[in-house]
Amino acid sequence: MISKSHIKLIKSLQQKKFRDELNLFVVEGEKMVQESLQWKSEYLVDLYHTSDSIIGEKQFESKNPNLITEQELKQISSLQTPNKSLAVFRKWSNSAEKLPFYIALDGVQDPGNMGTIMRLADWFGVKKILCSKETVDCFNPKVVQSTMGAIFRIEVEYVDLAKTFESLNLPVFGALLEGENIYSKSMKPNGILLLGNEGKGITENLQKSINFPISIPRFGEAESLNVSTAGAILLSEFFRNK
Amino acid sequence: MISKSHIKLIKSLQQKKFRDELNLFVVEGEKMVQESLQWKSEYLVDLYHTSDSIIGEKQFESKNPNLITEQELKQISSLQTPNKSLAVFRKWSNSAEKLPFYIALDGVQDPGNMGTIMRLADWFGVKKILCSKETVDCFNPKVVQSTMGAIFRIEVEYVDLAKTFESLNLPVFGALLEGENIYSKSMKPNGILLLGNEGKGITENLQKSINFPISIPRFGEAESLNVSTAGAILLSEFFRNK
Repeated sequence: MISKSHIKLIKSLQQKKFRDELNLFVVEGEKMVQESLQWKSEYLVDLYHTSDSIIGEKQFESKNPNLITEQELKQISSLQTPNKSLAVFRKWSNSAEKLPFYIALDGVQDPGNMGTIMRLADWFGVKKILCSKETVDCFNPKVVQSTMGAIFRIEVEYVDLAKTFESLNLPVFGALLEGENIYSKSMKPNGILLLGNEGKGITENLQKSINFPISIPRFGEAESLNVSTAGAILLSEFFRNK
Repeated sequence: MISKSHIKLIKSLQQKKFRDELNLFVVEGEKMVQESLQWKSEYLVDLYHTSDSIIGEKQFESKNPNLITEQELKQISSLQTPNKSLAVFRKWSNSAEKLPFYIALDGVQDPGNMGTIMRLADWFGVKKILCSKETVDCFNPKVVQSTMGAIFRIEVEYVDLAKTFESLNLPVFGALLEGENIYSKSMKPNGILLLGNEGKGITENLQKSINFPISIPRFGEAESLNVSTAGAILLSEFFRNK
């Protein structure tokens, strides 16, 4: 069973405005919900599952899951094909620890790209992503789903990038179309890898903060690379000598 | 103006069955249509544009574009936000030329991944992608749009991969979770880079065709990488020594 007011609340969390106001967000699908409970169970607010979900099983009893019908799950889900369980989480705060390496995103808009970059960070062990305020919200349901669990392990912070770069005092490597060939440069994961918006790249103002403009050499005809594949190649270059 | 029968025909091309039967496919949006005319104009069948599209301008007159209303464009478009022009193309045939390097896809399903991998191929100058019959159709409208023009420059062939590998007689590098560390191996773009399905990876049977199992080392916690970002990193490793 789920009350009308809970349905309304959960659906409202599809919008950034309400996620910010209530400090809550939604995780969906059997595998993602399991990962969320494994990594961040202390932030769990509400847990829903259909009768065929493993969330109904004994080991999840201490989380007080609510049994709902498939019809009810459909009402609260943002997925085209709702998948057995849904959890509402309180957002957690980020640590203030200074790290040796960051990814910074200047206005990445596509939720799929954002989620993929978070998954990449999680693969390479990058613990924090710094984002300009124009970057898509990491608690957007589409981002959450496409992180494949990285959302529970990677911190994302929305900041004034120029100011943050200054205070971190780390070298800034900016992905530009006319930068130094990354293959002729030996890079170590010490600094900030800055990636720009899908269409416009890095904003002119922020380009001033770049210490090392870097580029992936092109051997064919494509005008550009997708920001998440470019990010993948650049991250790999930073970590290959680790 | 556009006739009812043409509306029906163009809409039918959203389905693979009709694309195969009629040997036609659709390109949409101002920028993509322009690229299609630049690279493959000899295969153009029909061209439609709204009054505010540059396709209506003098330099495109020889292509006999049809002026339609925004309402009509909406009727034939597969995009959520139709964008000024739409072209119907005849599919072209692939060349039989033997190449030094191929990408091979074993059952990639997501149109966005397929388009992104084609765009990557286009960036690195890989001219042909070999696909198992289970791989998503490269003329799927979502694939076409996400290639950002690579569809006009890269050949995609649907084949029996095991047989084709045998006849090409090139070393097969298979992306697996337990393969050789790519960073400790110097690879040249001579061979076949084989990537598997999003969830299941490379089918067991085809794994027998792999000469060099390769892996991207993991430094963090993520279970896996998205196939297009993994492909990006692997391609970069092949081309970095070129």
